[in-house]
Amino acid sequence: MAGRTHLQHALPCTFGYKCAVYLSSILRHRDRLRQIERRCLLVQFGGAAGTLASLGSDRTGILVRAQLAKELELEDPMITWHVARDNIAEVLNFLALIGGTLGKIALDIIVMSSNELDEVAEPFVPHRGASSTMPQKRNPISSEIILATSKLLRANASLGLDAMVVDFERASGPWHLEWVAIPESFTYAVGALYQTTFALSGLCVKEESMEKNLHSTRGLIVGEAVMMGLAPFVGRQRAHDVVYEACKSAIEHDRVLLDVLKEDTEVSEHFNEAKLTQLCDPLSYLGSGQLMVDDVLKRVAEGKAGLKAM
Amino acid sequence: MAGRTHLQHALPCTFGYKCAVYLSSILRHRDRLRQIERRCLLVQFGGAAGTLASLGSDRTGILVRAQLAKELELEDPMITWHVARDNIAEVLNFLALIGGTLGKIALDIIVMSSNELDEVAEPFVPHRGASSTMPQKRNPISSEIILATSKLLRANASLGLDAMVVDFERASGPWHLEWVAIPESFTYAVGALYQTTFALSGLCVKEESMEKNLHSTRGLIVGEAVMMGLAPFVGRQRAHDVVYEACKSAIEHDRVLLDVLKEDTEVSEHFNEAKLTQLCDPLSYLGSGQLMVDDVLKRVAEGKAGLKAM
Amino acid sequence: MAGRTHLQHALPCTFGYKCAVYLSSILRHRDRLRQIERRCLLVQFGGAAGTLASLGSDRTGILVRAQLAKELELEDPMITWHVARDNIAEVLNFLALIGGTLGKIALDIIVMSSNELDEVAEPFVPHRGASSTMPQKRNPISSEIILATSKLLRANASLGLDAMVVDFERASGPWHLEWVAIPESFTYAVGALYQTTFALSGLCVKEESMEKNLHSTRGLIVGEAVMMGLAPFVGRQRAHDVVYEACKSAIEHDRVLLDVLKEDTEVSEHFNEAKLTQLCDPLSYLGSGQLMVDDVLKRVAEGKAGLKAM
Amino acid sequence: MAGRTHLQHALPCTFGYKCAVYLSSILRHRDRLRQIERRCLLVQFGGAAGTLASLGSDRTGILVRAQLAKELELEDPMITWHVARDNIAEVLNFLALIGGTLGKIALDIIVMSSNELDEVAEPFVPHRGASSTMPQKRNPISSEIILATSKLLRANASLGLDAMVVDFERASGPWHLEWVAIPESFTYAVGALYQTTFALSGLCVKEESMEKNLHSTRGLIVGEAVMMGLAPFVGRQRAHDVVYEACKSAIEHDRVLLDVLKEDTEVSEHFNEAKLTQLCDPLSYLGSGQLMVDDVLKRVAEGKAGLKAM
Repeated sequence: MAGRTHLQHALPCTFGYKCAVYLSSILRHRDRLRQIERRCLLVQFGGAAGTLASLGSDRTGILVRAQLAKELELEDPMITWHVARDNIAEVLNFLALIGGTLGKIALDIIVMSSNELDEVAEPFVPHRGASSTMPQKRNPISSEIILATSKLLRANASLGLDAMVVDFERASGPWHLEWVAIPESFTYAVGALYQTTFALSGLCVKEESMEKNLHSTRGLIVGEAVMMGLAPFVGRQRAHDVVYEACKSAIEHDRVLLDVLKEDTEVSEHFNEAKLTQLCDPLSYLGSGQLMVDDVLKRVAEGKAGLKAM
Repeated sequence: MAGRTHLQHALPCTFGYKCAVYLSSILRHRDRLRQIERRCLLVQFGGAAGTLASLGSDRTGILVRAQLAKELELEDPMITWHVARDNIAEVLNFLALIGGTLGKIALDIIVMSSNELDEVAEPFVPHRGASSTMPQKRNPISSEIILATSKLLRANASLGLDAMVVDFERASGPWHLEWVAIPESFTYAVGALYQTTFALSGLCVKEESMEKNLHSTRGLIVGEAVMMGLAPFVGRQRAHDVVYEACKSAIEHDRVLLDVLKEDTEVSEHFNEAKLTQLCDPLSYLGSGQLMVDDVLKRVAEGKAGLKAM
Repeated sequence: MAGRTHLQHALPCTFGYKCAVYLSSILRHRDRLRQIERRCLLVQFGGAAGTLASLGSDRTGILVRAQLAKELELEDPMITWHVARDNIAEVLNFLALIGGTLGKIALDIIVMSSNELDEVAEPFVPHRGASSTMPQKRNPISSEIILATSKLLRANASLGLDAMVVDFERASGPWHLEWVAIPESFTYAVGALYQTTFALSGLCVKEESMEKNLHSTRGLIVGEAVMMGLAPFVGRQRAHDVVYEACKSAIEHDRVLLDVLKEDTEVSEHFNEAKLTQLCDPLSYLGSGQLMVDDVLKRVAEGKAGLKAM
Repeated sequence: MAGRTHLQHALPCTFGYKCAVYLSSILRHRDRLRQIERRCLLVQFGGAAGTLASLGSDRTGILVRAQLAKELELEDPMITWHVARDNIAEVLNFLALIGGTLGKIALDIIVMSSNELDEVAEPFVPHRGASSTMPQKRNPISSEIILATSKLLRANASLGLDAMVVDFERASGPWHLEWVAIPESFTYAVGALYQTTFALSGLCVKEESMEKNLHSTRGLIVGEAVMMGLAPFVGRQRAHDVVYEACKSAIEHDRVLLDVLKEDTEVSEHFNEAKLTQLCDPLSYLGSGQLMVDDVLKRVAEGKAGLKAM
């Protein structure tokens, strides 16, 4: 399919490559999650000012805290963390990071679902994403919810950071922000994950549209490929100029790039038609994208093995 | 000194205890930093659409990327991360988490520096924090800058999260946010760290004021201590009622809590004056705060040892 | 052109209608600007705590302030506003509102500039928006900057609101936020306005593409028109069902809606081919969009007249 | 009472002056409210793409909209505003501006309620703001809620600005943000207003504490007054130096400023003891603060008259 930068066709890529990039983010989130569990899920037990004073001035209070942590399967902190809220803020940030990844996926789906691109569609559910007056519509409802959620998670992460700036041994005001942000963010994150699972599990991937779009610029998308092929013979700068002129001519006269190139003696001198046809074929200019997909999937497999071993 | 919750005297604590709580946050940040270095400092090398197409369709591009990572002492990613910006966003979040911790310290210093509390002052520098018309002033300038910076870091973290939601293989718009947020946030963070080091290194800690404030409520701050002492004899609920009435009476008649308690037969039945005096002494109700300080310092020492070993 | 909701073809509209909607926002901004000038551009003159104490305890200070306001062509406030920063925050909010409007325009341009829609292009400037390796590209650079700017303005508006929550007679921290947000926001706003003027002034509007896209769904975009036409004869619910089935059939068999409808006896009973052809013509279903454009332009003319009269 | 900048005593002011500054913000909000009602409360009636196509292509749709606006007592827009959401964003900004003003009031109350300042207390309600273990406490609960609310309103205003950047004729994602932000913000604003009314209506204002605090710096707070009094005789720069030295000496030797000044020949040459005592009296250095209070109250009265006339 067409790889797009600035929403303009750039170079060919594959839908699998796109998905592997998404997945690489998710793998890092899994990594974060394990670290956060150890760092942030601390038992809270400190008494009014955090000193555990009502349990005496020896180590009793600290031992009780350790035992409580054990029973609740939480970590035992090194000191009371009532007013060191970096853990809470980190958790909210983490949920917002997940939101960011899912929001990116959703945005891609929304744009790919437009009539003109028509490359994917969310799973069809009767009466979902339809319109009471426009029966032809099939709106990307899940993706829209995910996109909105990513913004709500972002706003709550910001509240969590604000709630870190507390006064003395118990905040007068900022603390209350967590009462809103924490339950909301967990709910939003679960909702976004659910919608993403739904949308991606049953995603209708339209290979024909992808191929049609890929070829819609009639070879321009592989301008770089031709330039790179020509560079060893005429130098990179000269290669760029030759291909640039050919692209311009193809656009102006609405022609196929291959046809224009064939007429260029500087090009045809080095490439016969078969070679030139191959250079102009988007499917032969996918780089190591497929190998990268393999690398990501290998990492997934390793992660699963690691999880089993735990 | 007085431990304060909701800016009201709650229970006694020590200034060292406060600082150890700050330090516990910093220790977690050090932990985060090490993990982020491995996860987020990835080499970026992918070509226009991330597929490394100009280096051919075999593993060459991936090997070049690995070598580049090695030479730049960066991590080698599993796949191009042009549009999986969770790493950038995590770094900005991390800087904002540091800002949150420093902002909390700054807020504490600002309030403790007020004329009425007068418990600390930033290091004296001639003509700094003074006023052209009010020579008596000594404003907590460093802390104010830190507090403002923590908010700027928070705003930039939010931009980083927004910049994750990019379209396809290169964002049209959101990407530019990073150009603002990344250099600003690093500068802000370094500035805030510098100001915090300056303010804390030379902080003028006024022990006498702390002690004076601690005793200013004439024993009320240890209401809990008396209640806890009495509970084994009369039951916790009864103990609460007795002490509550004593506190009320002390406030209403502007008396010392100890004096009121001495007159209460239910109290004097169980405690002689020496014991009661001890119960009413804030310095004997510090709980295990001091032991927690030791625990934090031990963790610091371990961290240093760990750093040396690396 | 195709009107799109959820990035799906909804109903036909015109590009002029879209622009008039943009313009209606701008007109409201002009209205806001006039009100803000009167409310927010207040002279600041109050002395250290705002009481103008160094000018004595009579009305002298207030009269000096009034005269200063006159000379600076600013409004004279009713009382010192050192710590009533709603004006500053409102100005920052206003700039962010402008950013929101421009961001919406920019987003529309970016999506319309994609290869698949290809309905507009930013003015061509040699070597601008091109790529060193992909000569075929023409990225919507101005729109991307505007979109990013709208987010930066939003972040700064948030700082302005934060800076309102100041302590007593001069803030310790929040105040500094304005030093960052105010100069930045004005610069951002001017930049976004400049880029918008540039992009819209020379915008390349591709009528043929618009028309092509409008017809690309082969009549589906006027499903509502047919339904509304049929409703008086068979009832609205029945009309919806008939057209819904026709749309489904057109999609499934890749046919033109008009052809499917012609074969439907329930439809052909009420409409001859000429009438049906007209119902299926997107250009005859533009509603009062054009009249609304006139209404907006009339308002612009009135505004200009009003400005002249001032 | 002490006017404080950077939480340091600056110059004397009165509690009434503080309240009048709060009130000046509220008066501007009332002004904003009236303008927003006219600009933003627009009827929404446009059909699927905003063109009112189902009502034909003449002026019918526009006339129906006008009549609907009349019946609902809303304004009639110049064009459909489905995707020109500046009005919604402005309303959310406005609620956040109110939040900012109330947050500032709340912060002042919280700090003034601290044990050391002890200048105000929220209305006493049995069992409210108390602690289960610390019966001596009386936390400023309303103010804390207001402060938290001001931050939540700020976050929602940001969502409103984000929701302006919508695509084409109906947003795919951003729109949903309003479903969260609008009901929440109105609820938050009403809650904050309610809590502010409650806290201020029954606020316990402790004049004795205010006076005690005002005199706690033993004259330093009127350093400026003495300097201004001396300037006409010795020049402003010399006056500053003389008073600066006197202040320093008073601080170092823990003396009353008046006593130090009396011993300074340069001062006693120009002022007898009576005059000097007057210069050192904070109550005689309130500037035109009281007159400003009158000005604000006059404005309130005019506003009420204006409201009656409407």
